[in-house]
Amino acid sequence: MDQKIVLYGFWRSLAAYRVRVALNLKGLPYEERVIDLVKGAQHATEFDAINPQHVLPVLEFEGKTLTQSLAIMEYIDERWPEKSYLPKDAYLRAQVRALSQITIADVHPLVVPRVRQYLHTQFGADEEAQLNWARHWFDRGTQAIEGLLVKNPHAGAHIFGDQITMADIAIASHVIGARLFKANLSEAPTMMRLIEPLLALDPFGRAHPLSQQGAPSAV
Amino acid sequence: MDQKIVLYGFWRSLAAYRVRVALNLKGLPYEERVIDLVKGAQHATEFDAINPQHVLPVLEFEGKTLTQSLAIMEYIDERWPEKSYLPKDAYLRAQVRALSQITIADVHPLVVPRVRQYLHTQFGADEEAQLNWARHWFDRGTQAIEGLLVKNPHAGAHIFGDQITMADIAIASHVIGARLFKANLSEAPTMMRLIEPLLALDPFGRAHPLSQQGAPSAV
Repeated sequence: MDQKIVLYGFWRSLAAYRVRVALNLKGLPYEERVIDLVKGAQHATEFDAINPQHVLPVLEFEGKTLTQSLAIMEYIDERWPEKSYLPKDAYLRAQVRALSQITIADVHPLVVPRVRQYLHTQFGADEEAQLNWARHWFDRGTQAIEGLLVKNPHAGAHIFGDQITMADIAIASHVIGARLFKANLSEAPTMMRLIEPLLALDPFGRAHPLSQQGAPSAV
Repeated sequence: MDQKIVLYGFWRSLAAYRVRVALNLKGLPYEERVIDLVKGAQHATEFDAINPQHVLPVLEFEGKTLTQSLAIMEYIDERWPEKSYLPKDAYLRAQVRALSQITIADVHPLVVPRVRQYLHTQFGADEEAQLNWARHWFDRGTQAIEGLLVKNPHAGAHIFGDQITMADIAIASHVIGARLFKANLSEAPTMMRLIEPLLALDPFGRAHPLSQQGAPSAV
């Protein structure tokens, strides 16, 4: 059985970023194959066989494929349980999932390229209007996350104590996305106090969008 | 300890629907408290204490609260493991999660009231334009789901064999949402063959949006 792990990703994809961090935290080596979303490579025939939904990321391992960043992260943690990023306590684990989903399911889907493109075709939204749209949803997400973190009784070095959890990964992707889109992070001191030190850690730093193949040197 | 389960929901919320189905499948009695999203009750002070993110659904049990439909469904299945809707095999379970997320994270977030409202304030989208927006994303989701189900090697009575899984619940919510918004379901025969019989089952039928308090008799 081929033990190699392949990640189909793209530098800018926040979902691919989350999976890279998860793999790095586990110390799992992987090869990333670039699917250039700007050039529409996700619609190419060769990629259709890998993911008929034509979206990133896709994890390929042991002859299997898997999509959707949350499902991939849960699988990685089950398949390689050392250095787990999901708490053992069921209610804590549920809270980690819920907080992760605020950004993965309530913010990120609204700012992906296919949505900004459709705003253009449907409402004539130019680039500035598309950016404002994205910033609006990042800011709404930031407010929601900050509101929850201020009341969070579990905080330690990280959001849920001293263990890095999936929620830290998800919210790190939120912060990186907010910066790429120049959204407002100045009113979320609690979130930034928890996430900023994470971004400097090796597993997060190596996964950063601007450190990937094909990325510009700055945005 | 108070054993009562309370679901804060609203007839139209597809996320609340998913949680109702999950509770019904487990045979867990619950009381639903209506948070009228049309009247903005999610922004009332009393609800802020229950969910500072001001979104539905919220599950309240044993003095705890939990948000986000996927996180709630995973917790219910862990806490009350009988009649599980998550397969025991890790890779199958991951595929159930991935398929669930296609509708919960790629479609549903785009059609919720706060997004349609913002389309109005930002781009002047009238009701017809908002409906067309919602239909577009339902149709894109339907195509993606149908494409995956056609190639799915696991289908039995349900999507992953003869056991109802979280993916069946998620895709049932997609079908119901598509119907509420009068989106196109005619080109998804595989999806409809699997989901239509489910909707007739008691746990799904009792959870249906149009069977809830405050719902209109038809839309």
